[in-house]
Amino acid sequence: MSDIPDALPIRAIDVIRKKRDGRELSRAEIEFLVRGYTLGEIPDYQVSAWLMAALLRRLSRAETAALTEAMLHSGEVLDLSDLPAAKVDKHSTGGVGDKTSLVLAPVCAAAGLIVPMISGRSLGHTGGTLDKLESIPGFQVGLSVARFREVLHACGCCMIGQTAEIAPADKKLYALRDVTGTVESPFLICASIMSKKLAEGIDGLVLDVKIGSGAFMKTEEDAAFLAELLVETGERMGKKIVALLTDMDQPLGFNVGNSLEVEEVLDVLRGRGPEDLRELCKELAAWMFVLGARCDGVASARALYEELIQSGRGLAKFSQMIELQGGDPEVLEDPAILPRAKHSVEVRSTARGYVSAIQCEAVGTACVVLGGGREKKEDTIDPAVGIVLHKKVSDRVATGDALCTIHYNDESRMLAAKQLLQQSFSIADSMPAPRKLIHRIIKH
Amino acid sequence: MSDIPDALPIRAIDVIRKKRDGRELSRAEIEFLVRGYTLGEIPDYQVSAWLMAALLRRLSRAETAALTEAMLHSGEVLDLSDLPAAKVDKHSTGGVGDKTSLVLAPVCAAAGLIVPMISGRSLGHTGGTLDKLESIPGFQVGLSVARFREVLHACGCCMIGQTAEIAPADKKLYALRDVTGTVESPFLICASIMSKKLAEGIDGLVLDVKIGSGAFMKTEEDAAFLAELLVETGERMGKKIVALLTDMDQPLGFNVGNSLEVEEVLDVLRGRGPEDLRELCKELAAWMFVLGARCDGVASARALYEELIQSGRGLAKFSQMIELQGGDPEVLEDPAILPRAKHSVEVRSTARGYVSAIQCEAVGTACVVLGGGREKKEDTIDPAVGIVLHKKVSDRVATGDALCTIHYNDESRMLAAKQLLQQSFSIADSMPAPRKLIHRIIKH
Repeated sequence: MSDIPDALPIRAIDVIRKKRDGRELSRAEIEFLVRGYTLGEIPDYQVSAWLMAALLRRLSRAETAALTEAMLHSGEVLDLSDLPAAKVDKHSTGGVGDKTSLVLAPVCAAAGLIVPMISGRSLGHTGGTLDKLESIPGFQVGLSVARFREVLHACGCCMIGQTAEIAPADKKLYALRDVTGTVESPFLICASIMSKKLAEGIDGLVLDVKIGSGAFMKTEEDAAFLAELLVETGERMGKKIVALLTDMDQPLGFNVGNSLEVEEVLDVLRGRGPEDLRELCKELAAWMFVLGARCDGVASARALYEELIQSGRGLAKFSQMIELQGGDPEVLEDPAILPRAKHSVEVRSTARGYVSAIQCEAVGTACVVLGGGREKKEDTIDPAVGIVLHKKVSDRVATGDALCTIHYNDESRMLAAKQLLQQSFSIADSMPAPRKLIHRIIKH
Repeated sequence: MSDIPDALPIRAIDVIRKKRDGRELSRAEIEFLVRGYTLGEIPDYQVSAWLMAALLRRLSRAETAALTEAMLHSGEVLDLSDLPAAKVDKHSTGGVGDKTSLVLAPVCAAAGLIVPMISGRSLGHTGGTLDKLESIPGFQVGLSVARFREVLHACGCCMIGQTAEIAPADKKLYALRDVTGTVESPFLICASIMSKKLAEGIDGLVLDVKIGSGAFMKTEEDAAFLAELLVETGERMGKKIVALLTDMDQPLGFNVGNSLEVEEVLDVLRGRGPEDLRELCKELAAWMFVLGARCDGVASARALYEELIQSGRGLAKFSQMIELQGGDPEVLEDPAILPRAKHSVEVRSTARGYVSAIQCEAVGTACVVLGGGREKKEDTIDPAVGIVLHKKVSDRVATGDALCTIHYNDESRMLAAKQLLQQSFSIADSMPAPRKLIHRIIKH
């Protein structure tokens, strides 16, 4: 009978029904849901029904922004305004052999920017930044927010895991989505990514949205949709955002596996290493420099990146960060202190010609099978194991050539991984058409 | 790698994803979900996500049948084969003033059929058969399955509530649907109704699918869709089914409220009472006689119904059932032993003309407000209160004529109900176009 429906209390059941019927939720309704769930006042079973309705009925841009904001404000939003420089970060949607974060954080800090990077662990066939860092003896990713600040003050970059204080709604919602078939919604993915990243108190964010056989998004269309959504949502919240759609149709670089990837990072910070990895690090860093207003354009930003690599200032910053986070900086001079697998075996080509494709997800899965990733959340990982590729797409191979080397500690795991890897390489008579590393750049 | 995907264990997450993506589930997948949920092995939050996916993606006829069957077999299915006659029942989708079950069970038993009727309680604005029966002093609806059988053997009909043994999956699923916005799916409604009714061990079922302002289905289109689904699902399971789409745009009969409705049932069993109620009882009973093979056609079945009423055999059967279920059969001779409200007040017309509409849901809600229904599941009901209509649609009224009488025990509740009732009657200058009581009959 009331003319003021706003005065009625919001009920979870009505919010579920409204979304189920395809109607747009108000900011207040979304806030009610996120706050109630975070506080444990709304039960899992109501939220999972809502998540499924949101996945199938989609969310509008306004709803996505409201969800992001509610999740962001479910916990602490870092205020880094006492640090004088611009704060930037990079987020990748996940791939195989993607170790760019370990290069970018120190290089950006060396450029005078602040990189307050909160990262994740391996998920499915993809690797995780935290797992890679933990292969460095002593390295601590579980710092308190207070210590995080101290490290940022001291060296300009710090890389930690999600804390209980940061976006707790995301932590709870992600765990529920994982078991209710509601992960695969670009709107929910967007809110999850942006709420965590914006809680870092950053000014600018570069998004690396992967496409291809090793990515969660297999098509450029799906990846572009998510990228647009991320850019728009971030900009609605007053942040500078750019998204790069990059190739994940084969592993990035040569090394897949935690210790092995840290070794490759050291190569890149020394101006060496695989070409694709070096190029992607340069492009991502350049956009971080631009968003952080360190450079006027991408061209000068690329030049700055080269300078920071050639001068060794990026590497020095990495050393400083390792030391501040409890790790052994000796790793720079002696990578042999990283965990090493006891055994290795080569996978050889049974044909001659050109590598026409590498089933990237299968390579990531082979690494998981070796023990380098997790099949269940509770699994511990073996930082030593992994795969080193010797041939990549377009490379010429002769029969008997080594395609890759498996580094392993367990014979039966090696055999399973070997089978996967042997099936991952396709050999053709002619060289395949080249595939771009950077498919598209999305910014407004 | 296996060529036999059936050999893989079914996982709840995969069943959710499959339905989410609009693919048809196998019988085994649906059985897995229902059994796992009933046993408490699959949590609420996974089932609620699945329910939302099922509501939005719909279920195929085969899925609906598989769901019905899995829910039916989640508990005991009565085997009444030791009773020599055909077993029939009737189910209504719920209305206001709908007391036909209390007439039909004894009349069908008087015709020599077996009516093992498991009924429900009031829900929302609609009344419940069990609540009506319980207004008879001493009447027990919570019989064990063993006692249910004994009463059926002794008198051919018995009316009880859902037991823990019958379709426990439905009990659990319905409670979850109620709080997750997943009630309003014809497929889930169909599985819920049919699993409970077929667990009674019946051969034939007459469905009374209501349409109009007092029904859950407001349009004939929605009601017909559900009716078709119910008929097809029942027939897939080897049962004889017919659905009548009947009018619920105004209350059925004059009396709304538990004791008041029992009084009206006694009138009908004596060949008196309101015309619409008498007609609907006759039509439903006639179809029950036909499905139970007691009569060859509806015309002879109607004649049998009249005979059972005129001879008093229906009333005698009702008396016998009341006595066997612990109730006081004296109620037949002295309805004054039913609970009576302390006070009554008339609602009078403020205009002259014809009753053009009665907001049927509002009348049901007025009865709930008086205490004759439940606002929350835990509420106890007052069997004495209710509404007696004096005018129905198409009746002529003068200013000041009594439209209805409110029987009440609480002044403030009466005032709220009175306001609702005053708004429920629409008075127009001309007589409205007549509306059929039986809109359509659906059978295969």
